[in-house]
Amino acid sequence: MSTPERLIESTRELLWERGYVGTSPKAILERAGAGQGSMYHHFKGKPDLALTAIRRTAEEMRATAAGVLDGPGTPYERIEAYLRRERDVLRGCPIGRLTMDPDVIAGDELRAPVDETLDWLRERLAGIVEEGQEQGEFAPSLDGEEIAAAVVATVQGGYVLARASGSPAAFDAGVRGLLSLLATAAPKDRPARPA
Amino acid sequence: MSTPERLIESTRELLWERGYVGTSPKAILERAGAGQGSMYHHFKGKPDLALTAIRRTAEEMRATAAGVLDGPGTPYERIEAYLRRERDVLRGCPIGRLTMDPDVIAGDELRAPVDETLDWLRERLAGIVEEGQEQGEFAPSLDGEEIAAAVVATVQGGYVLARASGSPAAFDAGVRGLLSLLATAAPKDRPARPA
Repeated sequence: MSTPERLIESTRELLWERGYVGTSPKAILERAGAGQGSMYHHFKGKPDLALTAIRRTAEEMRATAAGVLDGPGTPYERIEAYLRRERDVLRGCPIGRLTMDPDVIAGDELRAPVDETLDWLRERLAGIVEEGQEQGEFAPSLDGEEIAAAVVATVQGGYVLARASGSPAAFDAGVRGLLSLLATAAPKDRPARPA
Repeated sequence: MSTPERLIESTRELLWERGYVGTSPKAILERAGAGQGSMYHHFKGKPDLALTAIRRTAEEMRATAAGVLDGPGTPYERIEAYLRRERDVLRGCPIGRLTMDPDVIAGDELRAPVDETLDWLRERLAGIVEEGQEQGEFAPSLDGEEIAAAVVATVQGGYVLARASGSPAAFDAGVRGLLSLLATAAPKDRPARPA
């Protein structure tokens, strides 16, 4: 890997593990095995390098989610596949965790890719809920955007519960809880899906 | 306020704003207006002071939640009151945000009050869901602990969405989405509550 690639990949790992305020330029250089001047040679500094790293992580997260959400199955099944897809739950979300970082949230530039990714995810899920309503899988009284926000929030908050307890079980419980509610949210004239 | 009190309160604020890794002993002393030696005079060091601060924040959070959950109303209404209670959404949860902190999660001591608080909340909510099932407000097929995990996750993840977008609207959307699902989760022989 080239030096800029090593710097980007090391920054991505450190941002995931320690966040932006917890990641020093020194730690990035050490992990990348790069010399002192190399960060400023290839990037304008820590914010510029972090922005490149966050954008790449955001793109990957979007591609992974799209792979499941655009996959086969009914709307309910695709939402289920998204919620149940294999995750390294105790590591948390590399994008969502950045929202707890004061320096990411304070400036628009670093926050933008975080916001855009979560926004894209909510819109995509809202579309799937609406598809499900057209197909009679979900009650027409539900609001697609609200259900989508609840789905994304359950995942992001599930990481919080799992990391607090030191076990993925709490994440799984939240996901099962939401899915059982979605399963009972079939229109009243249609038998509820077994949860 | 006494010096130890000022140290504890300053630490609570900084942990909420910047997390544990983002809070230096120097920043605590500056905010508390305390002299260099005072942290080590009154506490064993940053971890000891942080533990005292986290415990106090956890106690307050528990008391606030209990005030709503033990209040008047049907089980659905008490869960709704918990989800809708006034929050400074963009500040996030002072307890939940600590789960993104590698130094809090790495050691059992600082993680313990975080885990206990979220665990207490989930158990309390699970009990309320079960009450609602006994009263015919929620379908008997639902699992109280799973619904409770979904409720707490929606709140914790709602903060993530709100902070990403820089607006409380996304938090509110997630809460409304979950409530609309809970409202349709009445037993099939009972008319659904209007969402």
